[in-house]
Amino acid sequence: MKSIGIIMGSRSDLPVVQKAVDTLKQLGIGYELHILSAHRTASEAAEFARTARSRGFGAIIAAAGMAAHLAGAMAANTTLPVIGLPCAGPHLEGLDALLSTVQMPSGIPVATVAINGGANAAFLAAQILAVEDGALAQKLAELRTAAAEKILEQDRAIQQELNQQ
Amino acid sequence: MKSIGIIMGSRSDLPVVQKAVDTLKQLGIGYELHILSAHRTASEAAEFARTARSRGFGAIIAAAGMAAHLAGAMAANTTLPVIGLPCAGPHLEGLDALLSTVQMPSGIPVATVAINGGANAAFLAAQILAVEDGALAQKLAELRTAAAEKILEQDRAIQQELNQQ
Amino acid sequence: MKSIGIIMGSRSDLPVVQKAVDTLKQLGIGYELHILSAHRTASEAAEFARTARSRGFGAIIAAAGMAAHLAGAMAANTTLPVIGLPCAGPHLEGLDALLSTVQMPSGIPVATVAINGGANAAFLAAQILAVEDGALAQKLAELRTAAAEKILEQDRAIQQELNQQ
Amino acid sequence: MKSIGIIMGSRSDLPVVQKAVDTLKQLGIGYELHILSAHRTASEAAEFARTARSRGFGAIIAAAGMAAHLAGAMAANTTLPVIGLPCAGPHLEGLDALLSTVQMPSGIPVATVAINGGANAAFLAAQILAVEDGALAQKLAELRTAAAEKILEQDRAIQQELNQQ
Amino acid sequence: MKSIGIIMGSRSDLPVVQKAVDTLKQLGIGYELHILSAHRTASEAAEFARTARSRGFGAIIAAAGMAAHLAGAMAANTTLPVIGLPCAGPHLEGLDALLSTVQMPSGIPVATVAINGGANAAFLAAQILAVEDGALAQKLAELRTAAAEKILEQDRAIQQELNQQ
Amino acid sequence: MKSIGIIMGSRSDLPVVQKAVDTLKQLGIGYELHILSAHRTASEAAEFARTARSRGFGAIIAAAGMAAHLAGAMAANTTLPVIGLPCAGPHLEGLDALLSTVQMPSGIPVATVAINGGANAAFLAAQILAVEDGALAQKLAELRTAAAEKILEQDRAIQQELNQQ
Amino acid sequence: MKSIGIIMGSRSDLPVVQKAVDTLKQLGIGYELHILSAHRTASEAAEFARTARSRGFGAIIAAAGMAAHLAGAMAANTTLPVIGLPCAGPHLEGLDALLSTVQMPSGIPVATVAINGGANAAFLAAQILAVEDGALAQKLAELRTAAAEKILEQDRAIQQELNQQ
Amino acid sequence: MKSIGIIMGSRSDLPVVQKAVDTLKQLGIGYELHILSAHRTASEAAEFARTARSRGFGAIIAAAGMAAHLAGAMAANTTLPVIGLPCAGPHLEGLDALLSTVQMPSGIPVATVAINGGANAAFLAAQILAVEDGALAQKLAELRTAAAEKILEQDRAIQQELNQQ
Repeated sequence: MKSIGIIMGSRSDLPVVQKAVDTLKQLGIGYELHILSAHRTASEAAEFARTARSRGFGAIIAAAGMAAHLAGAMAANTTLPVIGLPCAGPHLEGLDALLSTVQMPSGIPVATVAINGGANAAFLAAQILAVEDGALAQKLAELRTAAAEKILEQDRAIQQELNQQ
Repeated sequence: MKSIGIIMGSRSDLPVVQKAVDTLKQLGIGYELHILSAHRTASEAAEFARTARSRGFGAIIAAAGMAAHLAGAMAANTTLPVIGLPCAGPHLEGLDALLSTVQMPSGIPVATVAINGGANAAFLAAQILAVEDGALAQKLAELRTAAAEKILEQDRAIQQELNQQ
Repeated sequence: MKSIGIIMGSRSDLPVVQKAVDTLKQLGIGYELHILSAHRTASEAAEFARTARSRGFGAIIAAAGMAAHLAGAMAANTTLPVIGLPCAGPHLEGLDALLSTVQMPSGIPVATVAINGGANAAFLAAQILAVEDGALAQKLAELRTAAAEKILEQDRAIQQELNQQ
Repeated sequence: MKSIGIIMGSRSDLPVVQKAVDTLKQLGIGYELHILSAHRTASEAAEFARTARSRGFGAIIAAAGMAAHLAGAMAANTTLPVIGLPCAGPHLEGLDALLSTVQMPSGIPVATVAINGGANAAFLAAQILAVEDGALAQKLAELRTAAAEKILEQDRAIQQELNQQ
Repeated sequence: MKSIGIIMGSRSDLPVVQKAVDTLKQLGIGYELHILSAHRTASEAAEFARTARSRGFGAIIAAAGMAAHLAGAMAANTTLPVIGLPCAGPHLEGLDALLSTVQMPSGIPVATVAINGGANAAFLAAQILAVEDGALAQKLAELRTAAAEKILEQDRAIQQELNQQ
Repeated sequence: MKSIGIIMGSRSDLPVVQKAVDTLKQLGIGYELHILSAHRTASEAAEFARTARSRGFGAIIAAAGMAAHLAGAMAANTTLPVIGLPCAGPHLEGLDALLSTVQMPSGIPVATVAINGGANAAFLAAQILAVEDGALAQKLAELRTAAAEKILEQDRAIQQELNQQ
Repeated sequence: MKSIGIIMGSRSDLPVVQKAVDTLKQLGIGYELHILSAHRTASEAAEFARTARSRGFGAIIAAAGMAAHLAGAMAANTTLPVIGLPCAGPHLEGLDALLSTVQMPSGIPVATVAINGGANAAFLAAQILAVEDGALAQKLAELRTAAAEKILEQDRAIQQELNQQ
Repeated sequence: MKSIGIIMGSRSDLPVVQKAVDTLKQLGIGYELHILSAHRTASEAAEFARTARSRGFGAIIAAAGMAAHLAGAMAANTTLPVIGLPCAGPHLEGLDALLSTVQMPSGIPVATVAINGGANAAFLAAQILAVEDGALAQKLAELRTAAAEKILEQDRAIQQELNQQ
């Protein structure tokens, strides 16, 4: 199975990225995690993107905040799907990162997920790998069932609480 | 090769969706286009998503405006990648559709592209299919080269214009 | 008297929903509270909406955050009034939930109240039941009078404080 | 059957309100339409709200733009459900009217619908009347079915167009 | 000298209003402070506005948050200048209160100051009284001079700190 | 009676300012109109403000768009009330001008009216003059009555239209 | 004298960039104009930035819309000042381009000017060259004087118009 | 070498400005730091700008929040480059300061950096001085290299952490 490249623009994005890492581990998907800045290490970032397909990656997750160019810079250098993970910075609640990530020009899409949506970046990466991987698709479906079951359980629990009041 | 399901929430979204259709055609990717509303034909929409994998789709593009629930409703019913295409409505410049599409809860990602970004929705779909399809990846790379060449040509043309002034 | 269905998309919405519960209790209106996700338990949520009228509900309160589709998903499956209660998530101050809840397409309205406005969701539900229930309308009017009296009392108290300074 | 009071803050709101009028007519619901400003004819507006229940109204639709206080001013003077219809003004795309209408304080809810959502204001009013009116509920359900059928027809039409290309 | 009426929509607005009170005291301007809600005590609020001129007030400061209708409701009932003081609520950073206060329709202006700008509401009230009151104008000018001197002193202090580093 | 100084930052603001001029004329209030830029003719603008009181002005209206500093620059140089009239520029719908005008620091208030609210700037100026001018207050009250009567007339007209349908 | 590099991300940005070109011509400053995309011709864009200093440029103007990465990509590859010129796209009024351009991470600044502010991008470039070029500084000062004189002339003209009414 | 003038509108902006000071010190660039308000000490602020060039400054950094006029007021009084540093105030996340700083009218540009971007204001100032100063340009390039190396080191460190898990 192909693996997932995860790039974050700054070490401070780790709490958000950790949720992506944990989700990939839970799904048994290999990954390679890097700290690479679209601006401060532009050529290393571009190099990662350019060689990603031949190195066996199936998608790239790029996490960045503020004028979040990382996902776009990745996307400019590969035809692999690039998943943009906008991170909330100290101001503007992540709106700057969201718009900088999603509003890409024609021909260079970035598959953008929610602000600080680390787990969903990984789930989307897994769904992409699962297009041609029935076992992984099955695993994703089982997690969906488990998530649904957990909610129904919470629902039953809250009924009990209410009844006992 | 797998094909792409394209769903739009209203016939009025066709101008935006047409760009996706044209791009898929250009790439030689099969597609099935439907008008289905997350609210007015909820069960047909869910049914499309539920059966999409077994019917040979590799990804679903969902285009909708305002409180754009269509992509999320699709995503809730399949583990295929769902590409959200937020359409600008008469007010709020598409910000409502963007936030309604991208801010999905954990476990149910929507791969969101730019507001009215019909071509990019299709390019992203193609990139997803190309993860395991070297020929399509090659075609995408060639389009990239052609797009770059077109810009460089425009650049040369503008140099000439300036020289002749 | 008909009762009110209250659905929240996640257990984390309980602090907001609790204000709705307390208000319904104060008004002597029966309710049934559920945790059901528009995405993770889509069919259970739809089922609740579809059977709500025949099970004796007069309105449904749906509380959700981020790309808040829950109220819309409810509204798509019933002709009962659905009250949308947008919950503020970790980013964007609830603007995402507000727009996702209120900007519904023609034919499927959601009666949206203020961000985190749990009490008002319940007051609106009560007002709906009170259209044909004079006793409840009377109770609502009395609460209004009491609220006004409380403000006038606060006003008198602040006059005294100022006079004693 | 109770009827619906429709108040607009300015004659310029008529194009938006007309959609509400047409929808009520289509549903066979009586209405009374007024132009009354929360600021310029405050006492007439308050008077309408105060007497609305005794005059046989079941809900009030209040349409206004900019610092849209009309719905709130209505709601302050009745315990009937008040439906706020925010109208887009010349600037800010209706965001000012939306926030001025929906962000009401505890105890005085306004059931807010989409910006310029005239039809939905009327559908919501009808749903409120239909809580205790099975025939109207039936009519609303039939309109839903018709709307769904229309979309499915559009879907079939677009399939044909595509096949003939 | 005329005095200033200060109305706040809720006791929770007191920290913001206190800055207005302190500024008026500093300027030796009389005031009357009330808690009155545009929605919950609409007639008392309107009554205050209607009688304000004859009771010797020269301007009214109205402080409110969220769908802040208080200043507009005051302005609708008097031709005295009404100063709108938008208060930041728990969400949206006061943007809702600002737009609800400032975007008034033609004929009923509200003189809006900054979000939570309690002191400036009072300074504006004082400037209005000072139009025909040379002594008060002189006092305002002296406060300006003092504020300027304080900044210049801070400037000198920071120069010293820097020199001693 | 004191007169009103009207300053606009650019000749392109004239359509908005014209509404202020017309309103002052209607009220019989004298005015002096200038084009002066806070940035391009900073000293002339400051000079106007500094001498305004001694030259017999009772308030200043300052109209500007984008980073609208004009009202603030005026306010910094006079203790007369300065009315800020934010003008919508080619982008951002006037939100930039509104925030640049209203968010003034403590001690230097600007009395801000609605985006492009030229008439209200003049009405506010008149209200300020009317604090000590009973005849003008009377004229303002009469205009209010006339505006109310016009709405009530529009209301009667629309009743007739509806009856004749 | 050093010259200015002007890069635009798309030929459609030319109307905005033309204002920069015209301003530089008016100031007698040499320039080189290119169409280069941060995403589609990333290496050519980077190459321009890397060699700009040695090729005699004193500053770079980068004009782009939507997720406007061009200025940031330039800035990452040179220590010359990079002036970001955010262009308004079809949606969001240029807010996306503004935030994508200005919110740069520490160490890689972009000197951002107003949305579609083509002339100001050139004026800023000229000011940068004028730091060490007294003659150019003189020319800029003269333009300022001329601009001020033009406004004062407009002011005199409007006085005449008013007097003749 | 020329030095940099740093002006902050209020002592409370010091934490943001300190980052600019520290960066200039690190680069060995002289500076002069002042607290000067565009509104409260308008003439001192203007005087600083007017004499800045002759006193040997090469650029001015102006830091202010809310309706941040300081940078514009500086720019109106000098043809030196003025760097606008928008500071986040208690509300609106710095959006008010950003728009008030960046949206300047034609002819008076402000080189705006990120909200609270103190370090980048200084880096931009240094880049401006470095246009004609090869040694400073070299120093900036070295800091870029060091910043890149630090990121690559963080990248290697995180690889080790991952390997040891």
